[in-house]
Amino acid sequence: MIENDLILRAARGISTERTPVWLMRQAGRILKEYREVRAGVGGFKELVENPEMAAEVTVQPVDILGVDAAIIFSDILVVPEAMGLPYEIKESVGPYFRKTISSSSDVIKLNVPNPEDKLHYVKEAIEITKGRLQNRVPLIGFAGAPWTIFSYMIEGGGSKTFSKARKMLYQNPTLSHQLLEKITQTTILYLKMQIKAGADMVQIFDSWAGILPKNQYETFGLKYIKEICDEINEVPVTVFAKGAWNTLDLQGNLSCNTIGIDWMVSADLARTLVGPDKTIQGNLDPCLLYAEDEVLVSETKKMLSSFGSRRHIANLGHGVYPDTNPEKVKLFINTVKDFKN
Amino acid sequence: MIENDLILRAARGISTERTPVWLMRQAGRILKEYREVRAGVGGFKELVENPEMAAEVTVQPVDILGVDAAIIFSDILVVPEAMGLPYEIKESVGPYFRKTISSSSDVIKLNVPNPEDKLHYVKEAIEITKGRLQNRVPLIGFAGAPWTIFSYMIEGGGSKTFSKARKMLYQNPTLSHQLLEKITQTTILYLKMQIKAGADMVQIFDSWAGILPKNQYETFGLKYIKEICDEINEVPVTVFAKGAWNTLDLQGNLSCNTIGIDWMVSADLARTLVGPDKTIQGNLDPCLLYAEDEVLVSETKKMLSSFGSRRHIANLGHGVYPDTNPEKVKLFINTVKDFKN
Repeated sequence: MIENDLILRAARGISTERTPVWLMRQAGRILKEYREVRAGVGGFKELVENPEMAAEVTVQPVDILGVDAAIIFSDILVVPEAMGLPYEIKESVGPYFRKTISSSSDVIKLNVPNPEDKLHYVKEAIEITKGRLQNRVPLIGFAGAPWTIFSYMIEGGGSKTFSKARKMLYQNPTLSHQLLEKITQTTILYLKMQIKAGADMVQIFDSWAGILPKNQYETFGLKYIKEICDEINEVPVTVFAKGAWNTLDLQGNLSCNTIGIDWMVSADLARTLVGPDKTIQGNLDPCLLYAEDEVLVSETKKMLSSFGSRRHIANLGHGVYPDTNPEKVKLFINTVKDFKN
Repeated sequence: MIENDLILRAARGISTERTPVWLMRQAGRILKEYREVRAGVGGFKELVENPEMAAEVTVQPVDILGVDAAIIFSDILVVPEAMGLPYEIKESVGPYFRKTISSSSDVIKLNVPNPEDKLHYVKEAIEITKGRLQNRVPLIGFAGAPWTIFSYMIEGGGSKTFSKARKMLYQNPTLSHQLLEKITQTTILYLKMQIKAGADMVQIFDSWAGILPKNQYETFGLKYIKEICDEINEVPVTVFAKGAWNTLDLQGNLSCNTIGIDWMVSADLARTLVGPDKTIQGNLDPCLLYAEDEVLVSETKKMLSSFGSRRHIANLGHGVYPDTNPEKVKLFINTVKDFKN
């Protein structure tokens, strides 16, 4: 049904003619066409909440860059907002939550909302995107992992150390689990809505996985990712726990299809730890897109060789950085497309 | 000569009656006695540049907390400043450099200064501290690793991705090496001055090691740390490359005595990768100092058992966080002191 279903086959471990490729943060940031649309609606958050325009910027990288999948333009922070904690994006600072979580009564007040109601704009954006993609490539849906959402809810924004969120884990494990469970239930409903609306695969982003000791990430991180994976059987699921190299063995036991890795982990180490039954996604250093063409091409080929021709989805090890030249991104994509393993 | 030389013996692999303990960032931040002194001189940077008062806050944790070593109160950014790039500490933002490095002519303009001249205040602070310590415990000197100093020089401050500094590595490796070499030469002179002034051991802090892929950290990070280690033979040397778990095997080949690790690495993994011939320093999660006493004590004991009784220096896996209760720090220290392996 989908013309180019390389990424779905790669996720399921079915052989493909070549390695599929897309980029985290491909919708947005680097494209002038994106910046024009964003300026037109007023800002990042306005764009996230505008289904028509969100669909437009979702499709842009398919048309302009030639990636093998679209990913819905949205933000992981729509979930805490739907649960009762509105966010703002502060220019050159990042996300900011006016209300944060610090007590049991704060947790009780949070909703497990019906996403069809509170996150209807994401559903619509997916439906419009599916119409515009006309089955050329699959559409990826996504959500933040519970630990990362939990961190934002407690910190109220980004942090270098996430010490407030981590303090909560040590000082009040019971409350931490209650909050994580509420986030998990919301996330499951939210991903199911995305799938019903048309998402062909989904990715769970655990941006702050790399700050927790192994036993804590197992208890407060992977436990809830597992709950989500166990509930989502409709489409392939990717888990990207950035920086969580020390639990890659445990990630290999999740009932998901694909594990994302960053550029600190080698293909060999990831395969050894994750085991043979998962597809691995990654892992070019996004800074290689600043390099001379020659270096970028040779490092991309080296990366592709190191993963081999099966169970690999080519991507960066992190979202593409805002000041990246789109021509470099095209070169990366075309190098993957032309590569014969 | 030094009454309590546990840490020097542990670093050299000589057996000790018990595991020595100190904390990164012990001088400052958490002690009200420190905040009083800082307020008296006007601010953080004023304190760094005031030998008398820097010596006072250096000795405070020995008297108040009972640590087995003092570490000179200073900042890694005194080196870029001595080379020609002055820094400021912006309240609730962090370090900020008005001038940064972006071209070959910028690098040429940087000095390799005589630290006896430009960093005389550190020398004096060490001399005064040694007088006040009266050989009770050793004094640790320190410097930033070249890669971390390089990052600050190019970024002009902290960053989430350090993409400017990393872009330079890919776009202009020759210039990058020139700059790293200049920083390295300055750092060697600076550490030698600290040792001459009385530092009994020195630590090299590579705060941003964890952002580079393995081959790049080898080329642009460890290469210069090795140069420093090879030049410093007078006293034991500790290398703490935070987040650089994927080069622990290579760190094991450095001619230093001790390798610091963070809380993402287990004692077993560190020992396996580093090999038997180094002391390992670390690695309690600093957030455990927020936990109930019972949890803190049991996790500290677990950590101590996992390292065994030889070639271990107990510490946190990162600098102590500013809002930590000093009573918890004392409990951590006393738990180490009372522990029988």
